[in-house]
Amino acid sequence: MLPFDGEKLQRLMHEDGMDVVLLTSRHNVTYATGGYYMPFFARGQRFGNGQYLSAVAIPAADLRSAFYVGRDSERDFTDAFGPLWITDLQWAGRRSNMTVGVAEKAAQILRGQGRATATIGVEFPFLPVDAFQVLRRDLPEATFVDATEVLGEVRAIKRPDELARLRAVHRVTGEAIRSALSRVRPDQTTRQLAAEVYRQIEAGGAAPLYALPNVGPGLRRAPSSERLGRGRPLQVDAGAEVEDYRSDVVRMGSVGAAPARALEMFASCADAQDRVRRTIGAGVACRDLWRLGSEALAATPSGQFGRFLAHGLGMVSHEPPEVEPDSNRILEAGMVVSIETEYRDADVGHVKLEDTVVVTETGCEGLGDVEREWCTAPDG
Amino acid sequence: MLPFDGEKLQRLMHEDGMDVVLLTSRHNVTYATGGYYMPFFARGQRFGNGQYLSAVAIPAADLRSAFYVGRDSERDFTDAFGPLWITDLQWAGRRSNMTVGVAEKAAQILRGQGRATATIGVEFPFLPVDAFQVLRRDLPEATFVDATEVLGEVRAIKRPDELARLRAVHRVTGEAIRSALSRVRPDQTTRQLAAEVYRQIEAGGAAPLYALPNVGPGLRRAPSSERLGRGRPLQVDAGAEVEDYRSDVVRMGSVGAAPARALEMFASCADAQDRVRRTIGAGVACRDLWRLGSEALAATPSGQFGRFLAHGLGMVSHEPPEVEPDSNRILEAGMVVSIETEYRDADVGHVKLEDTVVVTETGCEGLGDVEREWCTAPDG
Repeated sequence: MLPFDGEKLQRLMHEDGMDVVLLTSRHNVTYATGGYYMPFFARGQRFGNGQYLSAVAIPAADLRSAFYVGRDSERDFTDAFGPLWITDLQWAGRRSNMTVGVAEKAAQILRGQGRATATIGVEFPFLPVDAFQVLRRDLPEATFVDATEVLGEVRAIKRPDELARLRAVHRVTGEAIRSALSRVRPDQTTRQLAAEVYRQIEAGGAAPLYALPNVGPGLRRAPSSERLGRGRPLQVDAGAEVEDYRSDVVRMGSVGAAPARALEMFASCADAQDRVRRTIGAGVACRDLWRLGSEALAATPSGQFGRFLAHGLGMVSHEPPEVEPDSNRILEAGMVVSIETEYRDADVGHVKLEDTVVVTETGCEGLGDVEREWCTAPDG
Repeated sequence: MLPFDGEKLQRLMHEDGMDVVLLTSRHNVTYATGGYYMPFFARGQRFGNGQYLSAVAIPAADLRSAFYVGRDSERDFTDAFGPLWITDLQWAGRRSNMTVGVAEKAAQILRGQGRATATIGVEFPFLPVDAFQVLRRDLPEATFVDATEVLGEVRAIKRPDELARLRAVHRVTGEAIRSALSRVRPDQTTRQLAAEVYRQIEAGGAAPLYALPNVGPGLRRAPSSERLGRGRPLQVDAGAEVEDYRSDVVRMGSVGAAPARALEMFASCADAQDRVRRTIGAGVACRDLWRLGSEALAATPSGQFGRFLAHGLGMVSHEPPEVEPDSNRILEAGMVVSIETEYRDADVGHVKLEDTVVVTETGCEGLGDVEREWCTAPDG
């Protein structure tokens, strides 16, 4: 049983003239195997005089001749993971430079499969130079093209188990920000606020990726020694991971009462989000969504400071679908969209709301979009 | 003030014929800047249709003309970090493919510095193919060589603040394993044991990297549904990070009393470690250390099952110094060595102890080497 849409992959490979994809990035190896990545290196690949690398090769003409190349010390881990749909597991010998060893093994197997002259899709923004040099040396008649976009397209429609992870990681992130914002004190720094968001994300069982704090009317969004103060708009933009699936959440708050204009802007952010959500559904054009969101913000009293942005989200942030004014993309059920509505006004600060939804046949559904209200922490 | 030994870097670059090093891996960028890496991408670089990349270029002839290339949205973060020793900060424009943008900017600046025909050291096991293709296109007269080993050598001698991080991460890891092993129950699985070690590492303020559990007499070291049982040797091999510095710790325990032979092997592991520690010091040859450790294990009753291993540790596991039978390396004060003593016997299991020391002028000092004793959890 393939963990992804094999026919879609075959179709996209055919359109781009690829005979084989050879995936090596951590997220695409994890995706293509159906969740397996060598646990010893899953949270950091650097080792010895190089880094760990593994590869999944999938020929378009025959998905069943897909193979995996890992490290010889990895067998315990594939055994413990359980049966993979890829039954041909190959092992590169122990050597300090694992990138080269895996590339040599992959080239040897592709040659053995009669694919020495194939057009091979690799991940140019991820594949290390030394591994690529080996592929070119050992497969001199092959043509190498970039497969990054094709893989992004295959990942764009999420399975129910992927949606469950996205729901979980967004809920944990939203609750973590709320927990941190509800207890801030005016003498705390943005660095302390960010650290508390990290702790709360970990306590919720997710791995924090970033927490960017902002104190209005400043527009800076980096942890620093700046104090949170009283009655100033506080923003936290945070992301985390649960089993490789990412959240992207923005929440606002203040110590004591916030300025009226900040609250007004925030209400407009929420209102624009609601309008966009009411429009989203399978068959809707992304450029129409972008226009609707942008116009909703522009029509508000602070419209000149407004900005609308939306993007796909899954294992990668800003993956397909792209929601842009010139996009030809039509939304499909199972796509995931993170919606950002914001104002940047030097008199007020950076007021923003961001949440993520999954497109359904008839509309959309929020993914763990909890604790969205402005959070007013008690002053004193 | 340089955060590393600039003269050593210059000498090694000169020996290898490099005019410039262009560093792009996360750990070497962090090391070369003195601790800065774009926080938004520090825990995961994939984004859009590629990944985040930044670069530090250091010319051997003039360290002061070093420059940094980041992303334009990064200025808030460099400002918040505080002054860097690299004063020339350059920004690649916003584009989905950040690898290409950074390479274009770096090539342009090197050309402007009159370095278009330079020999440039890059990190072949880390540099993405597309960034390298841009460097070759925009600097066709330059020669590119691998700088990975040179950087490993420069990192080999640790500063006091690096040692403080290594001490902290090892202490947290040792305490986390002890806490987990002291509360195990016979019906728990190795997967649950590994998860508890993760939780305890996080509670201690470090980021877990891996936790490999083993139940003797099996030799497998992967989290699975295997039960811990009573009176069986339990091993945990765990690593974590504190501010990019890694731990590597192995501890043993059992639910109730352990088999006598396992305890005997464990005592021999500790004894061999003590002998090696008494020998370590500045000026000692790594191959002598390897021979001493190997012979100490071989001379024990279970000697035929023994194996001695030691390796450098810092931002990278198995970085210099290499402790091998044929190594010409002489230990220097400030080098960090992780020492592994183990027996793999199919009748008993995998009995092992691993701790890390820093070499001093007169000997060595354990780095957070806490809770080393066999941990017997109460049975029932």
